[in-house]
Amino acid sequence: MSPFKNVANLSVSGLLSESKKAVDNITHLAMDRRIRLAVTGLSQSGKTAFITSLIHQLLHGLSAGNLPFFSVVAENRFLGSKTMLQPNMEIPAFQYDKFISSLTGEKPEFPRATDGLSEIRLAIRFQPGSFISRQLSKTATLYLDIVDYPGEWLLDLPLLNMTFKEWSEQLLNFCSEEPRTALAAEWLKYLQNIDSSRVADEETMRQASQLFTKFLHDCRTKKTGLSYLQPGRFLIPGDLKDAPILTFCPLASSSNSPPKGSVYEVMEQRFESYKERVVKKFYRDHFSKFDRQIVLVDLQKALNHGPGSFGDMQSALQGILNSFTYGNSNLLTRLFQPKIDKLLFVATKADHVAANQHPNLERLLNRMVVRPVNDAVFQGVEVKTLAISSVVCTQTVVREHHGRRLSFVKGVPKGQSEEVLLFPGEIPETVPSLTDWEENRFNFLDFQPQLATSGSGGSVPHLRMDQAIEFLLGDKLS
Amino acid sequence: MSPFKNVANLSVSGLLSESKKAVDNITHLAMDRRIRLAVTGLSQSGKTAFITSLIHQLLHGLSAGNLPFFSVVAENRFLGSKTMLQPNMEIPAFQYDKFISSLTGEKPEFPRATDGLSEIRLAIRFQPGSFISRQLSKTATLYLDIVDYPGEWLLDLPLLNMTFKEWSEQLLNFCSEEPRTALAAEWLKYLQNIDSSRVADEETMRQASQLFTKFLHDCRTKKTGLSYLQPGRFLIPGDLKDAPILTFCPLASSSNSPPKGSVYEVMEQRFESYKERVVKKFYRDHFSKFDRQIVLVDLQKALNHGPGSFGDMQSALQGILNSFTYGNSNLLTRLFQPKIDKLLFVATKADHVAANQHPNLERLLNRMVVRPVNDAVFQGVEVKTLAISSVVCTQTVVREHHGRRLSFVKGVPKGQSEEVLLFPGEIPETVPSLTDWEENRFNFLDFQPQLATSGSGGSVPHLRMDQAIEFLLGDKLS
Repeated sequence: MSPFKNVANLSVSGLLSESKKAVDNITHLAMDRRIRLAVTGLSQSGKTAFITSLIHQLLHGLSAGNLPFFSVVAENRFLGSKTMLQPNMEIPAFQYDKFISSLTGEKPEFPRATDGLSEIRLAIRFQPGSFISRQLSKTATLYLDIVDYPGEWLLDLPLLNMTFKEWSEQLLNFCSEEPRTALAAEWLKYLQNIDSSRVADEETMRQASQLFTKFLHDCRTKKTGLSYLQPGRFLIPGDLKDAPILTFCPLASSSNSPPKGSVYEVMEQRFESYKERVVKKFYRDHFSKFDRQIVLVDLQKALNHGPGSFGDMQSALQGILNSFTYGNSNLLTRLFQPKIDKLLFVATKADHVAANQHPNLERLLNRMVVRPVNDAVFQGVEVKTLAISSVVCTQTVVREHHGRRLSFVKGVPKGQSEEVLLFPGEIPETVPSLTDWEENRFNFLDFQPQLATSGSGGSVPHLRMDQAIEFLLGDKLS
Repeated sequence: MSPFKNVANLSVSGLLSESKKAVDNITHLAMDRRIRLAVTGLSQSGKTAFITSLIHQLLHGLSAGNLPFFSVVAENRFLGSKTMLQPNMEIPAFQYDKFISSLTGEKPEFPRATDGLSEIRLAIRFQPGSFISRQLSKTATLYLDIVDYPGEWLLDLPLLNMTFKEWSEQLLNFCSEEPRTALAAEWLKYLQNIDSSRVADEETMRQASQLFTKFLHDCRTKKTGLSYLQPGRFLIPGDLKDAPILTFCPLASSSNSPPKGSVYEVMEQRFESYKERVVKKFYRDHFSKFDRQIVLVDLQKALNHGPGSFGDMQSALQGILNSFTYGNSNLLTRLFQPKIDKLLFVATKADHVAANQHPNLERLLNRMVVRPVNDAVFQGVEVKTLAISSVVCTQTVVREHHGRRLSFVKGVPKGQSEEVLLFPGEIPETVPSLTDWEENRFNFLDFQPQLATSGSGGSVPHLRMDQAIEFLLGDKLS
C-alpha cells in the first residue's frame, strides 16, 4: 500500500484542514514550552511545604515511582527534570535546596514560612505523547516557573471597587463583631480621641496606622486565626515599611465634607495611592502573567478556631475568587487581560485526619467556594478541589473502641517528641450551621514530619500531589 | 526730599538693571521655597543622631537660643518651624518623634540606626532679610526635605565605570591585604573549588554569593570597621534579598572567554544588571534630586582601628567624592544633571575628644579629602568641613597632670553607668604615616547621652550644629 494513499484520498479542503491541524500542533508545542504556576494561601496554610514537596516530586518522581496519577510518568514519557537559573533578576529565589534539607535532614522540620514574593524555575524533559508531536521532536522541555506570593495580596482586589468611605464603613462594621471588637479596642479608642477634620500631621497618622496594623497582626495570630485582612501589604510591608502609602487606616466619615489637608482627606489620598501603586501594580506586574493558580487552605485550623474564624475564611476565599471571576465586575479585564485557565483549591494537611475523612475535606472545601463556582462566573477557568498532604507525617490506624471501629491517626504532634495515637474527630461534609458548633467540637493537631521512619527511601511521602500535578501540568506534557 | 529722587537720578539702563535685580530676587524667592538636603555617612557615623539633632535645633532653636551662628536666628528673623506631611508616598518616614523621645527620655539613649532610605519634611517660617524680598512678602516659608540614605550606596558609583573583570580584579586585589585576607578566607576557598566555566546553577551562585555577603558584613563589624565595601546593596538588600540581581560575587577570570551559561558569564550578567537597575536607579530616582549633601564620618573610630581601617575610610571618602566630581569622568552628567551646590563633610562625635582637639579633627578630615578638593574637580560645588557634636555627652575639664595642663573629657562611657574622667589622647592634624601608628596609640571611647544633667532645659546640647545649618540653609533664608 502506498504510504501516500491516505493523503491521495483527501480532498483539497481536507488537506488544508490536515495542514492546519499540524500547524496548530506546532503552535501548541511552541506555545506550551513555558508555564507560570502561582501558589498562594491564607497564612500558615503550608505554602512553603507544598511548593517544596511539588518540586521534590518533579525532581525525583521518576526514581521513586510514587506519582501514579501523573500521566507523563505513568506512560513512561518522563525523562527527568532539574532546577534552572531564575529568569527574573529582581524576584527573590524560592530556596528549595534549603527547604528540602530541613525537611529531609536528621531531625526533619517543616521549612520556615516565606515572606512576600519568591520564584523558582524548573525544566521538565519529556517525550511528547501524540503522534504528530513525536514526529516534530523526540524530546521536549517544559519550563515551569513556580511563583509563591501571600494570599493577602489577592484580598486587596475588592479595594479597587471601593471608595475610602465605603471601605472604612465595611471594615468598621466588621469590627462590630467578635473576635474583632476586642482586638480593635485600642485602635478604635485612639480614633475616638482624634478629630479627623483637623489638620493632618505625620505623628497622628502614624499612631493611628500603627494601632490599626497591630490590630491586623493580632487578627491573624495562631490564637485568633482570622483570614479576611486588608490591606494585605500592611502585614508584609517590605521596603514600604513606614512609608506614607502604608500610613492610613479606616475612618468613620463625618456628615460634612472633610477639609483639605485634614486627617480624613490625607488618609483618603493615601488609600487611593495604595490602590493605584500597590494593588494595581501587583495585578499588572505579576498576576497578569500567571497561567495557573493554586490556593491552599488549612481547613482544620479554621474549624479549630470556631464559627467566627471559619466564616471569616469563607469570606476570604470568596474575596480571593473575585480575582478570577472576571465575568462579574470586569474590573480585571479593564486593567488587563488575565490568562489563568486552571484554578486548584487545595485543602492541606490531609494526613492530620484519618484517611476516611479525606472525601469530606474535599466536599467541605467545595461547599465553601460553591457559590461563585456554580454561578458560572469562571469564564473559561477550570476549577478543581483536592485534599492533599504535601508531606505525610502520620499513619491512619483502624482500632476497635467501645465496640465501634474508629480510624485513629498515629504521629508525633508538633512540638512533642513521642508518637501518639489520636482520634482527631470527623470533618463535616458541609459548612456547619451556627448551632452545630459545640464547645471544642474540633481540635485537630499539627504533626511533625517523620521522614526517617517513613521507609520510602529518602523521598518525601505525599497524598495526592500527583493528582494536583496532573491537573496543573498534564496537558502541557502531552 | 522726593521719595522718587533716587529713581529720577538713574539712567534708563540703570532702571532696567534695578528692575532685573528685583525680578531676579522674585525668581530667587520663588525658586528657593523647597530644598532637598541629603544626609549620608559611613556605617555607625551617627547619622540618625545627627538628623534628629538637626530637626530638634530647627524646631526649638528660637526658644533655646543656642544657635548663634544661624543668621536668621541671630537677626531675629526666625519665626518658627514644624514637621510636615511627607511628600513622597513610597519613601519610609524618618521617625523624628520616636528618635527624640529616646534621646530626651528619662534614660537617654542614642536612637537605633536607620536602615535604607527615609525622609522627613520641615517647614521653616522666616522674615526675608533683604529690602526687596520684604516688600514682596512679610513672611516666607522654606520647605526642607531631609533625606537619609546609606553611604554604601554612594560607593557603588565607581562600578559604573568598571567591567565585571576589572571590578573582580580590584576586589580580589584588596583581599590580598589584611584584614581582608583573613575575612575572605572562607569565601575564597569556596571559589577555588568551583570551576567558573562550568554551567551555572542557582545553588552554586547562591553559596558563593552568600559567603561573599558574609565577608562584606564581617568587614564592617565594630571590630574590623572597614568602609570601602561594594556592592552597597548587598549589605542592605531590602526587597531584593535573595533575588538574582544580588546573587553574584567577584570571580578571577580565566584566560579563555567564558562559555555561555557558565558561572562566570551568569555572574557577569548579574553584575551588569546590578549596575543598570540598582546603581543607576538610585542616581536617577534620588541622587539627581538632592540640592545639598552632608557626609558624616567617625574619625575617632577609624583611628582606633589602626592604619588598615583608616586608609580604607580614606579610600571610601574619595570613592564617595566621585559622585560629586562630575568634571572628572562625566559619568554622572551622562546619566543626568546633578544639581548639588554645597557639600558638607562632618567629623562627628567631636565631644568625645577635648575641645582643644576639635581644630585637629577638622584639619585631619580636610587632609583626607584634600586631593579631590584641591584638584578643583568640584565644578561649582562649595565644600566645607566641620567637627560637630550632634548631642554633647561630655564636658572638657582641664587638670594638672605631672606638671602639665591636660584637657580631660568627663562623661559616662557607653554601656557603663558611672561618670569617668578620661584623657582620650590627641587627634593628629595630618594623616599619620605608617610608622606613626604605635600599638594602641588611639583608644577613643563612645559616650552615653546625659541630657538630664546637661542643664539646658530639655533641649539637646550640641557643638557647631548652628554652623552646619548656616552653611546648608543660610542663603535660602536670606
